[in-house]
Amino acid sequence: MSRIRTDEAPSHMGERVTLAGWMHNWRDMGKFGFLVLRDGGGTFQVVLDDESEMAKLRGLQFESVLEIAGEVTPEPRAPGGAELHNCRVTVISPVLEVLPFEINKKELKPGLSVFLDNAPLGLRHLEKRSLFRISAEMMAGYREFLIEEGFVEIQSPKIVGSATESGANVFQIDYFGRPAYLAQSPQFYKQIMVGVFERVFEIGPVFRAEKHHTARHINEYVSLDLEMGFIKDHTDVMATLTGVMRHIFTRIAAQCAQEVALLQIKVPTIGESIPALRFPDAQQLIFERYGEDCRGEPDLAPQHEAWLCEYAEKELGSELLFITHYPTSKRPFYTMPDDEDPALTKGFDLLFRGCEVVTGGQRIHRYEQLLENAHKWGINPEDIAGYLLAFKFGMPPHGGFAIGLERLLMQLAGLSNLREATLFPRDMERLAP
Amino acid sequence: MSRIRTDEAPSHMGERVTLAGWMHNWRDMGKFGFLVLRDGGGTFQVVLDDESEMAKLRGLQFESVLEIAGEVTPEPRAPGGAELHNCRVTVISPVLEVLPFEINKKELKPGLSVFLDNAPLGLRHLEKRSLFRISAEMMAGYREFLIEEGFVEIQSPKIVGSATESGANVFQIDYFGRPAYLAQSPQFYKQIMVGVFERVFEIGPVFRAEKHHTARHINEYVSLDLEMGFIKDHTDVMATLTGVMRHIFTRIAAQCAQEVALLQIKVPTIGESIPALRFPDAQQLIFERYGEDCRGEPDLAPQHEAWLCEYAEKELGSELLFITHYPTSKRPFYTMPDDEDPALTKGFDLLFRGCEVVTGGQRIHRYEQLLENAHKWGINPEDIAGYLLAFKFGMPPHGGFAIGLERLLMQLAGLSNLREATLFPRDMERLAP
Repeated sequence: MSRIRTDEAPSHMGERVTLAGWMHNWRDMGKFGFLVLRDGGGTFQVVLDDESEMAKLRGLQFESVLEIAGEVTPEPRAPGGAELHNCRVTVISPVLEVLPFEINKKELKPGLSVFLDNAPLGLRHLEKRSLFRISAEMMAGYREFLIEEGFVEIQSPKIVGSATESGANVFQIDYFGRPAYLAQSPQFYKQIMVGVFERVFEIGPVFRAEKHHTARHINEYVSLDLEMGFIKDHTDVMATLTGVMRHIFTRIAAQCAQEVALLQIKVPTIGESIPALRFPDAQQLIFERYGEDCRGEPDLAPQHEAWLCEYAEKELGSELLFITHYPTSKRPFYTMPDDEDPALTKGFDLLFRGCEVVTGGQRIHRYEQLLENAHKWGINPEDIAGYLLAFKFGMPPHGGFAIGLERLLMQLAGLSNLREATLFPRDMERLAP
Repeated sequence: MSRIRTDEAPSHMGERVTLAGWMHNWRDMGKFGFLVLRDGGGTFQVVLDDESEMAKLRGLQFESVLEIAGEVTPEPRAPGGAELHNCRVTVISPVLEVLPFEINKKELKPGLSVFLDNAPLGLRHLEKRSLFRISAEMMAGYREFLIEEGFVEIQSPKIVGSATESGANVFQIDYFGRPAYLAQSPQFYKQIMVGVFERVFEIGPVFRAEKHHTARHINEYVSLDLEMGFIKDHTDVMATLTGVMRHIFTRIAAQCAQEVALLQIKVPTIGESIPALRFPDAQQLIFERYGEDCRGEPDLAPQHEAWLCEYAEKELGSELLFITHYPTSKRPFYTMPDDEDPALTKGFDLLFRGCEVVTGGQRIHRYEQLLENAHKWGINPEDIAGYLLAFKFGMPPHGGFAIGLERLLMQLAGLSNLREATLFPRDMERLAP
């Protein structure tokens, strides 16, 4: 009899089925006992009342892997309205060691560091795994929307030959005796590929050798990138991003209803558009509303982002907010300057519940202008020759953005540390498991 | 008037539209000229017969980016049955330098090395870009099938703390002053995640510091990985792989008909199952049919794979062939040994048109057996403590595989070098662009 998943069991009422999964919980009441079996589909209650079957569980710890054949029986009090009776148990993988912490309670006791040390076990916790199911849905929603919009998926190399290509704070590799570097972003490659496909996207790892010790930085993360050609300006890119975010949230609400409920997540709904503030206006607003004069500073501090989001939610009814026209001095050399004020750019960030989750903008597409900016930024054109080649041979107006997958999950689920939104986070101290 | 793509133009017959793209070809006949405009959708013929409009193209090289407003006019001899008349040209990005090679002819003249040096330009060639559209479809087909089958997508870290975790031939990184390594595969992580989701998949880069100089090896490639729990044995994994391959090929035939035709690709059809040969039987067959006695050798040479595929195509009517039960000595320590002969494993390869494209198998799921094998293979359990933790706390019977994306594309499209199936290949000599 082939095994079915626990979420399929209720549709087999009255039949004998075989389930298999982890011993999530076990209460031995003497003459009988209640076992909760967990598998990829969820959990299911199993009633054991046969002494010889119950004996098989003696000495076993939680998380032992069991196969249980039994009869699906109606039980209104059990989750799913059914439980398994008249069972025969087979122990597949016994666990003999006591778990370092309980993973079958709503609350996970250990601190973040102990949790991460034991992530292969801790991630089995129903709430923890729900986070990463939502993460998977974010990626699926992202791709689904873009493929529909004519974007082509690419996979660009993560080992690059020049540190300049990848910006500051790069990890260095020993590449057959010579230095190479880990790509900080697929930026150059996705722009090059606009010359091939017009519209491209990529989901992949990016690496930042930044010596950060904050709750919102890690050194390796997943970037949802895209780049699109033949745009009018950065507002076309913002419109695509608005569509992307709307689709991701709609899909999560529809496909992850169970996880959303379990984690008590409020999924935002995005209307026709997301409100936008120009960078100088955002600073003026902070000054007037919150009394801090950050006007003239080249970037926004985390507190500023938090205030702006508070403002957007209260006054504009939106949990998301675009900030546009970031200063040229804080944006990369390939960022398109604003037509009226060249000290500002056609670059934007998207803030969500107090934190930046997306960076994007229009890029320079004319070869001469790009070359001139490379010089201005102190970049040797030789170091970015492959990138410049694409521009020498014709590039259309284009722009794009990068969503930080873990950031988006952190903000959606209201987590306090980016590491909680990462399967196996890498930071200055952590390289394991 | 907002721009439409060339493939949308024929449905606007008689209307004035704006197209934009690259100057793919231009024949100046004096009083008039034929321009072929290329964009993400394809190519479109544009007729210029106005002296002032034609003058705008003087001095421009191919690949200049143009916007052209004109009237869609029926023309049975033009591809798509239409061309653009009464045009006004706007030059968006002029190209002033002669291209290093022609990219608007069916045949690409330069050798592989010159092509790769100029890949940002060369990839715009219609046949070259078709390859990577098929590659995108492979990934889409892979994911679509697996999500339908209940698999959850994961993203595992590419920076790992121990070289053992990643096997031999790893690239070393300077990680804030201490050594770290690039992951050779997501193997350990996907197995750990079987404990969380039962069924997981990942598409991502893998890194091999192998000193190969062959047409079928590169040092960074894209791996389509999966791992599935609660299997009977490796044949369950092979059945899933069969479904994956069938779905990928079916989807390519349906979604990439144009590219398949352009590249003259013969897409295989996969029936109920893919034939399988046990490793010792495959060696015996080679001996009997081709006269080479490789019996007792621990692995198959490329020539052996080619012979076996020739046999499978002629005698079994299949372009794909499973080889199962590879020797234990050539498989990793986590491979499940065969029940009858522990010198053999429940590991398999999938061969396609003469070359291995997938490696997989059943893994060991019991903690004690895995620990014992680690010792046998000379691996320090301390170095793989995070991995072993998952097994200490209960793992079901499981297995999985990894498809090499570039290998699959190479074999499908009949390319002679894996570098042709890679956007920006990395090998011992090449780190650019």
